Amino acid sequence: MVSVKDRVRFVETDMMGVVHHSNYFRWFEMGRVAYMRQANVLLLDLMAEGILFPIVDVSCQYRSSAKFDDNIIIETTLSELSKVKMVFTYKVIREDGVLLATGSTKNAFADANGKVLRLPDTYFDRLQAVFQKDKESC
Amino acid sequence: MVSVKDRVRFVETDMMGVVHHSNYFRWFEMGRVAYMRQANVLLLDLMAEGILFPIVDVSCQYRSSAKFDDNIIIETTLSELSKVKMVFTYKVIREDGVLLATGSTKNAFADANGKVLRLPDTYFDRLQAVFQKDKESC
Amino acid sequence: MVSVKDRVRFVETDMMGVVHHSNYFRWFEMGRVAYMRQANVLLLDLMAEGILFPIVDVSCQYRSSAKFDDNIIIETTLSELSKVKMVFTYKVIREDGVLLATGSTKNAFADANGKVLRLPDTYFDRLQAVFQKDKESC
Amino acid sequence: MVSVKDRVRFVETDMMGVVHHSNYFRWFEMGRVAYMRQANVLLLDLMAEGILFPIVDVSCQYRSSAKFDDNIIIETTLSELSKVKMVFTYKVIREDGVLLATGSTKNAFADANGKVLRLPDTYFDRLQAVFQKDKESC
Repeated sequence: MVSVKDRVRFVETDMMGVVHHSNYFRWFEMGRVAYMRQANVLLLDLMAEGILFPIVDVSCQYRSSAKFDDNIIIETTLSELSKVKMVFTYKVIREDGVLLATGSTKNAFADANGKVLRLPDTYFDRLQAVFQKDKESC
Repeated sequence: MVSVKDRVRFVETDMMGVVHHSNYFRWFEMGRVAYMRQANVLLLDLMAEGILFPIVDVSCQYRSSAKFDDNIIIETTLSELSKVKMVFTYKVIREDGVLLATGSTKNAFADANGKVLRLPDTYFDRLQAVFQKDKESC
Repeated sequence: MVSVKDRVRFVETDMMGVVHHSNYFRWFEMGRVAYMRQANVLLLDLMAEGILFPIVDVSCQYRSSAKFDDNIIIETTLSELSKVKMVFTYKVIREDGVLLATGSTKNAFADANGKVLRLPDTYFDRLQAVFQKDKESC
Repeated sequence: MVSVKDRVRFVETDMMGVVHHSNYFRWFEMGRVAYMRQANVLLLDLMAEGILFPIVDVSCQYRSSAKFDDNIIIETTLSELSKVKMVFTYKVIREDGVLLATGSTKNAFADANGKVLRLPDTYFDRLQAVFQKDKESC
């Protein structure tokens, strides 16, 4: 599990006075990128090899509204991994411990034409190593 | 069912060359607002009465990537309605008929303090009328 | 001059209850893309030839706040054109005629490495034709 | 001068492979909020007293493109201050020292109806103290 901290920006609020729900997917992405970076899988390296990673499925459950200037923690876990997809799950937690939202995203792997491809071993093995370590620590 | 047309903006793309997945929730919102407007339920009227409508749950399944300059149609259907929540479902369709994505969102109703409230009859009845008509036409 | 209509989205508002200032640059972009399309210069065609068009300078003056659900008109004019840059100016007008904002943007032309390049005649001539016609009609 | 660090997000890129120009205004806002927080002027306190701070003028000059995963520093300086407006200037610098962009923003102060108001002394004095200290340190 990888934790990323952020602070809610003014632009992320809407006229209801709370964070617009679409922004949570921006936060999930920050968490996902950080998780993969920790596994030494850089999106820029994937793209340089012509490997794309389109999002194919997302969901989010909102428990309590994030507000401007809140300090938040995004906890990201890799919950499913194969050579053709990865599923991440997320918790967004306010610094006082209140759970703001949970969510999940599924990425597939594809070439530049959108054709499904299998993640090369070099990257898969790195993710797999972190994935196994995470499961053991649970 | 209410249809809204839009054209994909450059800013909506990301470096994979397709629309970033978070933007579909902006499109769903356009569809939802248009649906409610057709039922003569204006968000500004709700807010003027202190009725908020926080999003509590969303999901999206991405089938085919939307690209810059694509003409798209957002089809919105009210699929569940009660005095405490409404669930909308969506289809995003490219003008050549290709289904790009499906999704759903659930709104609750709440007061300014986030406490759940029941939608007043005046608004509920208007949504209910459209909801019934839609079900009959299916 | 090219006019584009749009309706303010909920997501474009912030907790001050008005449109966040950064969104006007999204609207300017819609106007710019529409202007170029009318001149038969498609951004996708430019990119297919390896011609990029980075923004190098922007400004916006906000006169009156745009609000949720406002119907707006974005008026775009090409005010300077050469083979190495184009300057567009914009007016955002509410449907009742109130001027909401004015602004300008400057694009340069560059190759994929960011090196400045000159816009090929085939595209320049199309923009120049519209540019001349606009100046005469003023 | 107040420095804020951030890392470029995937969602901030566009199909030209670099950060979309509109995002710099989100970064400027982060810097502005941090500057005011350091002066102990919290936007939430202002809003609680019915003091709004609409943006009335912005500009940005883009020197070099920010890219995904870049570590950036946003340097914010308060360059003009009166009871009716504040002008901030910004530099966005990549961690290797390359200047990516400069910009400026002007805020006015207004009540909930958009009518201009004068910033109360309690807030003005705090900003003025930091403003003076900054000028002396230059």
